[in-house]
Amino acid sequence: MALNLDTVGKKLQPMTFEYADRDVMLYALGIGAGVDELGFTFEKELKVLPTFAVVPAFPALAGMVGVLQVNPLMLLHGEQRIELRKPIPASGKLITTPTIRAIYDKGSGALIVVDAETADEQGEVLFLNTFAAFVRGEGGFGGDRGPSGARNVPPEREPDAVVEMPTLSQQALIYRLSGDRNPLHADPDFAKMAGFDRPILHGLCTFGHVGRAILHKFCDGQPERFKDFEARFSGVVFPGDTIITEMWKENGGRIILRAKTQGGDVVLGNAAATVAT
Amino acid sequence: MALNLDTVGKKLQPMTFEYADRDVMLYALGIGAGVDELGFTFEKELKVLPTFAVVPAFPALAGMVGVLQVNPLMLLHGEQRIELRKPIPASGKLITTPTIRAIYDKGSGALIVVDAETADEQGEVLFLNTFAAFVRGEGGFGGDRGPSGARNVPPEREPDAVVEMPTLSQQALIYRLSGDRNPLHADPDFAKMAGFDRPILHGLCTFGHVGRAILHKFCDGQPERFKDFEARFSGVVFPGDTIITEMWKENGGRIILRAKTQGGDVVLGNAAATVAT
Repeated sequence: MALNLDTVGKKLQPMTFEYADRDVMLYALGIGAGVDELGFTFEKELKVLPTFAVVPAFPALAGMVGVLQVNPLMLLHGEQRIELRKPIPASGKLITTPTIRAIYDKGSGALIVVDAETADEQGEVLFLNTFAAFVRGEGGFGGDRGPSGARNVPPEREPDAVVEMPTLSQQALIYRLSGDRNPLHADPDFAKMAGFDRPILHGLCTFGHVGRAILHKFCDGQPERFKDFEARFSGVVFPGDTIITEMWKENGGRIILRAKTQGGDVVLGNAAATVAT
Repeated sequence: MALNLDTVGKKLQPMTFEYADRDVMLYALGIGAGVDELGFTFEKELKVLPTFAVVPAFPALAGMVGVLQVNPLMLLHGEQRIELRKPIPASGKLITTPTIRAIYDKGSGALIVVDAETADEQGEVLFLNTFAAFVRGEGGFGGDRGPSGARNVPPEREPDAVVEMPTLSQQALIYRLSGDRNPLHADPDFAKMAGFDRPILHGLCTFGHVGRAILHKFCDGQPERFKDFEARFSGVVFPGDTIITEMWKENGGRIILRAKTQGGDVVLGNAAATVAT
């Protein structure tokens, strides 16, 4: 099955996402926040975790998978970037406009890059997302390989901060209620068909854990100081694993990041964030 | 402040509860189900835990607290009974009709007993709830003390089955997203004002854990075999505690129950269930 390359560059139908404080708290619990982060898990003076930005935009990505008729068994989330322009309200109605930026030919598969811009009902842009999804078996169509080279490489020195976060055995079951119901993260049979021993954690759930580490170590827990965050998903996290985030502080509020699981496998790399200092 | 005794016996305004599979799965996660109970936590062939019956009826109880103008700081859930007539659908619109059955004068406080009947849109009754709530400081009005004597007393022999279920530190934060947002279960300041060291688990969250123990030990995981379940909340569970359910099998599908926490305190007693054998 060939991907439809004519879709590249086209702005697609805007999608509306309506949410309440319950969705904000459920997301926070889904990425491992709990009783020590009541500002994000309890409705009194509720704040929204910056990585919640992926949630209103997620249907746009899912829609794109439909437009391109990608086999979900062959799909892996490869990279993610978010850029926060304004604090995210604790409830509301947001409109996301997606664009397929590129479909790169990586040989063994295709890398689909989707940009999505999310605005409030007044049209003010609150945040941007870039999703990059790798589709196994869809490469070799003679297309551009896309940018390469290692970005956001950690310096040689020891990290300036390390945060360890255990995940729950039911972490993916909680996380998926925020919208990504890919059975890869819940159904043992589906996971086996996709080549995994058991259901794996969502890349964006790992992304959320690492986002919490950045927020608490370098933004004093204040979402408005969190400006952007990008990462590549380079390994598999199983629910129950511990996510260990290593952080290096650079000039100008830039943080280089890497996350491993307890066995030392890098699961999130080529990662960086910008925070207001 | 006196309770309005004129409300006793009156059938109040029906309340509608609309829900989707997400609510059913979130409830299951809230009462501790996880990857070993995918039939209740994953949408494929989703079944509904019998104790979910308390969720659609809960707004009726909360409404009653409003009608009687009870101070929420003085309120404790005392007893609960559910009776299942039909399996609960995985999504739908249900209508609950509450009646204040009695307000008993317990001296130190009042015991408010509310019956609630829940039907589907065709008017078929699916389940019944009885909530009994104790309001500290509202006794001494010269009313009937109500029924007394110990019900559902465990026999002298060792239990026929024991199930241990650890709870999460964030268990109450997950559970409360199913509708009971009493800050007693989340807000440390509120918990202190109510006389507790820290937020406590919802009685109905404990009830749900014990319901899972009954379902898995005596109903082979089949909700349609679970007929009724009643219990008194006799002690405090803190999130993170382990709930240990002891069960004695009697004749005719009757199960006598008691639940303790890891230190041996009885937290749920005078409890029994009926299952189809």
